[in-house]
Amino acid sequence: MCELLGMSANVPTDIVFSFTGLMQRGGKTGPHRDGWGVGFYVGKGLQIFQDSAPSSDSEIARLIQGYPIKSTNVIAHIRQANVGEVNLANTHPFTREVWGKRWCFAHNGQLKDFSPEPGFYQAVGNTDSERAFCDMLNRLRQQFTQEPSVQQMLEVLLAACADYVALGVFNCLLSNGEWLFSFCSTKLAYITRRAPFGPATLKDADVSVDFASQTTANDVVSVFATDPLTHNEQWHMYAPLEWRLWQAGECVAEGQLSNA
Amino acid sequence: MCELLGMSANVPTDIVFSFTGLMQRGGKTGPHRDGWGVGFYVGKGLQIFQDSAPSSDSEIARLIQGYPIKSTNVIAHIRQANVGEVNLANTHPFTREVWGKRWCFAHNGQLKDFSPEPGFYQAVGNTDSERAFCDMLNRLRQQFTQEPSVQQMLEVLLAACADYVALGVFNCLLSNGEWLFSFCSTKLAYITRRAPFGPATLKDADVSVDFASQTTANDVVSVFATDPLTHNEQWHMYAPLEWRLWQAGECVAEGQLSNA
Repeated sequence: MCELLGMSANVPTDIVFSFTGLMQRGGKTGPHRDGWGVGFYVGKGLQIFQDSAPSSDSEIARLIQGYPIKSTNVIAHIRQANVGEVNLANTHPFTREVWGKRWCFAHNGQLKDFSPEPGFYQAVGNTDSERAFCDMLNRLRQQFTQEPSVQQMLEVLLAACADYVALGVFNCLLSNGEWLFSFCSTKLAYITRRAPFGPATLKDADVSVDFASQTTANDVVSVFATDPLTHNEQWHMYAPLEWRLWQAGECVAEGQLSNA
Repeated sequence: MCELLGMSANVPTDIVFSFTGLMQRGGKTGPHRDGWGVGFYVGKGLQIFQDSAPSSDSEIARLIQGYPIKSTNVIAHIRQANVGEVNLANTHPFTREVWGKRWCFAHNGQLKDFSPEPGFYQAVGNTDSERAFCDMLNRLRQQFTQEPSVQQMLEVLLAACADYVALGVFNCLLSNGEWLFSFCSTKLAYITRRAPFGPATLKDADVSVDFASQTTANDVVSVFATDPLTHNEQWHMYAPLEWRLWQAGECVAEGQLSNA
């Protein structure tokens, strides 16, 4: 399995602290040795760093831990391969341009015998994850000739998620830089930090931060992770089949699929 | 204007030497202060590093100069903005997935009043360069439902180039990881290095390399640049309207558009 990390914030915020925790799980405190990647939205642009080397041992991961990139939407992933070889093309997050925006996707889980309808978007590598991403986008573009409302888009995404959970485990993070969609099939946690900010200590590394010294009273920053990253804060667990849509750090829509 | 750099090689080769020369021109020996980017193909994957900061002053550029990524196809660019603000979305190279492959594009020049037909691929930023890239891909996908032969693809690309040079300056590098297409509207140079390899010294930095110590007798490595990067080797200048298609370091097709 893999681990997901995401962030939604109302001001450009660096994710160095959370990323440092996640990276330890890539070969050090966790078994996810088969590559890692992180996508940062900066304006309409998306900066993706990836490496098929273990994150605890990656030059590029070290750069990011020392170089705070400020972003309002982030999606990161560390991989323990089950489908598809260990190589760059199979490394999350995946990206496609959709209606003039860059979309970014990462998946935790596994879909069995997953062969979606072919469409305009095709997988470059050979993971079930990238095929699911392309399938979601193909469904959207087949349904809508131009960018639909968020409500219309959610209906299509949730119908896709319902199909995927029938085939296996599908926890995912998906963003177009304006919103971040999160779906929990089995395991996903979140925390929303806002004033008064306090200190936090990573589970996976001897690193603490006092968010009060780095933030202003109006900052709202939500972080999503497969497993809580800190041990002295209150994380919330998603229920199975629960989804949330985040914008500027706030949950703006949520719901739960019914069991099939 | 901007500067282009590309590489095609028959074995995974690092581009640290050439990249180091180019990066000096991004704010130090040259005026291209408005961002830089480089895309490396590794297998079917494409690793893109970009920064809207000047390359001579970029943490990420320093990482790449110290961390040899071996690739068979590389496209790099340093930007001096004329159209579109300085931000990540406007930073070359641009990428799109086409028929299950990642395509990568960088442009040197400027197209005046360029408003191509809308299509499936849309620009994320607001440069003429990204609009041209999307237009080339839209023409290909409108013409062919699946990946055409290289010959068929070239016909469409060259028709597009002919249209673009009527609107301004269009030097470009385009790759899908298997081949690298190069088109010269005003200025482009190349060099093919093969055994016996010799020493080379950068024009823009006090750096020399003896390629003989880094290569085997069968290696073939071609490098493309707006301006020759070394001063003790024989570079070849493209003629205006000349194009070349490169594969595994060798020029496999070439020609020249006639003047309109």
